[in-house]
Amino acid sequence: MACSPHPLDEALRLRPAPSSSPAAGRYEGQTHAGYWNMVGPFGGITAATLLQAVMQHPDRLGDPLALTVNYAGALVAGPFTVQALPVRSNRSTQHWTLSMQQAGADGAPMLTTSATAVTALRRQTWGVDDMRMPDVPAPADLPALPPGLGVEWLDRYEIRPICGTIPERWDGGGEHSLTRFWMRDAPARPLDFCALTALADVFFPRVWLRRARRVPVGTVSITVYFHADGAQLQETGPGYLLGQACGQVFRNGFFDQSAQLWNAAGHMLATSHQIVYYKE
Amino acid sequence: MACSPHPLDEALRLRPAPSSSPAAGRYEGQTHAGYWNMVGPFGGITAATLLQAVMQHPDRLGDPLALTVNYAGALVAGPFTVQALPVRSNRSTQHWTLSMQQAGADGAPMLTTSATAVTALRRQTWGVDDMRMPDVPAPADLPALPPGLGVEWLDRYEIRPICGTIPERWDGGGEHSLTRFWMRDAPARPLDFCALTALADVFFPRVWLRRARRVPVGTVSITVYFHADGAQLQETGPGYLLGQACGQVFRNGFFDQSAQLWNAAGHMLATSHQIVYYKE
Repeated sequence: MACSPHPLDEALRLRPAPSSSPAAGRYEGQTHAGYWNMVGPFGGITAATLLQAVMQHPDRLGDPLALTVNYAGALVAGPFTVQALPVRSNRSTQHWTLSMQQAGADGAPMLTTSATAVTALRRQTWGVDDMRMPDVPAPADLPALPPGLGVEWLDRYEIRPICGTIPERWDGGGEHSLTRFWMRDAPARPLDFCALTALADVFFPRVWLRRARRVPVGTVSITVYFHADGAQLQETGPGYLLGQACGQVFRNGFFDQSAQLWNAAGHMLATSHQIVYYKE
Repeated sequence: MACSPHPLDEALRLRPAPSSSPAAGRYEGQTHAGYWNMVGPFGGITAATLLQAVMQHPDRLGDPLALTVNYAGALVAGPFTVQALPVRSNRSTQHWTLSMQQAGADGAPMLTTSATAVTALRRQTWGVDDMRMPDVPAPADLPALPPGLGVEWLDRYEIRPICGTIPERWDGGGEHSLTRFWMRDAPARPLDFCALTALADVFFPRVWLRRARRVPVGTVSITVYFHADGAQLQETGPGYLLGQACGQVFRNGFFDQSAQLWNAAGHMLATSHQIVYYKE
């Protein structure tokens, strides 16, 4: 049986721009219909694509430690370019600036996304996970969301809700913004830094839960801190992650979201924050 | 009586680089001895300085919404340049890339700090503060930290500890990383976005509290989300802010910190996150 690539690997495919050396960090990619959101790609896949450019850059030092992605404008379906530049390399950390561009209506390149990343060589030290994984039912004991919920990218994930599920009635009766669910790529796929990045953005907008009202929203900026190294991701393999997300403030058109991602063994793999526009 | 400028205003002073137009966003500044940390400036003042370049850029749209600052290398005492570029302006948000440079040992410019910012026009909408200010004693009922604690910048702040104070004994006996204190500029100064940015970084390293052990540390990346508009900052004036900070994970050389800043009226003004290097 022929083995077709995983949709995530298809979406993350970047090739060096023609007539540029790999070290120039210029890549070309293509939006993927499988990760389409309402008016552009799922933000998590855009963030993962920017990190992918860092991962395949020949001068990379170490593993991802921090990534901040600013969504400046929606991508349209089609090709895009990514620029990844290591702007300073130290002994154990390396700083990156990243950008994504697409041809605008007039054909001129237009910035859609800007980002920064830090990669680092990690050494074994004292450590502790103070934010413990909450006590929740096992994935096998919880039903998965059915496919076909309305946006294509959601079908690329297997999500098993625990609490704070998307409201069944949009009746304005929300009381909190805490969501917990098990999640993984669908079909299952071994975890890596890019997949983890996208998973950090799988949570639906906190304001929908908080208000039980479906107002227009859009992430403005997301930051992911990676607490796991490659070995811990490999141990996690294609297993479920427990995701938790909550908002702290909703005010005058913007709310924040804090999120934590643990593997099933209870190791915190990533924490993430975002600030999100909402209307009304 | 002559009125000398506040040290914060001195530290944040930027002038357009010679023979560049204001719209070019190239500024020159100077490190300030009053905000010196152990091997470079206090990280909060560097972050505030980068935001200051945005604030005085003639093309700025709206107020700060998000700022991410990556500390790529320590600054030495002396002059630096800041570059602030609005890379995309939409109807209500504007995206910025920022960098700070200093002459290296060979005289060539060297990047010390990279950053991104988002500014936004905010409109009145539904809102709620879900992360409530904890119930704490009033500033007047708490003694302030004495001056001369060892790093110069700390004397530029009035800090009235509530809980999670810096350990009195470095005996390895730490149990948590939660700190709360009242704080403001010293001398008192009306709050603005730059001052708020610096205040988001006033917390001492979480790992020192968690371990009651003073290991070498350094912030790698900080993000500040601004939830207040200019009017709310003006209402706060020179008043105290309640600051709260806590770490979630400490692992293999890096820990995270989440922080919240409220004014005395209980309004959440900013939330912040950082990832910090630690040794051992």
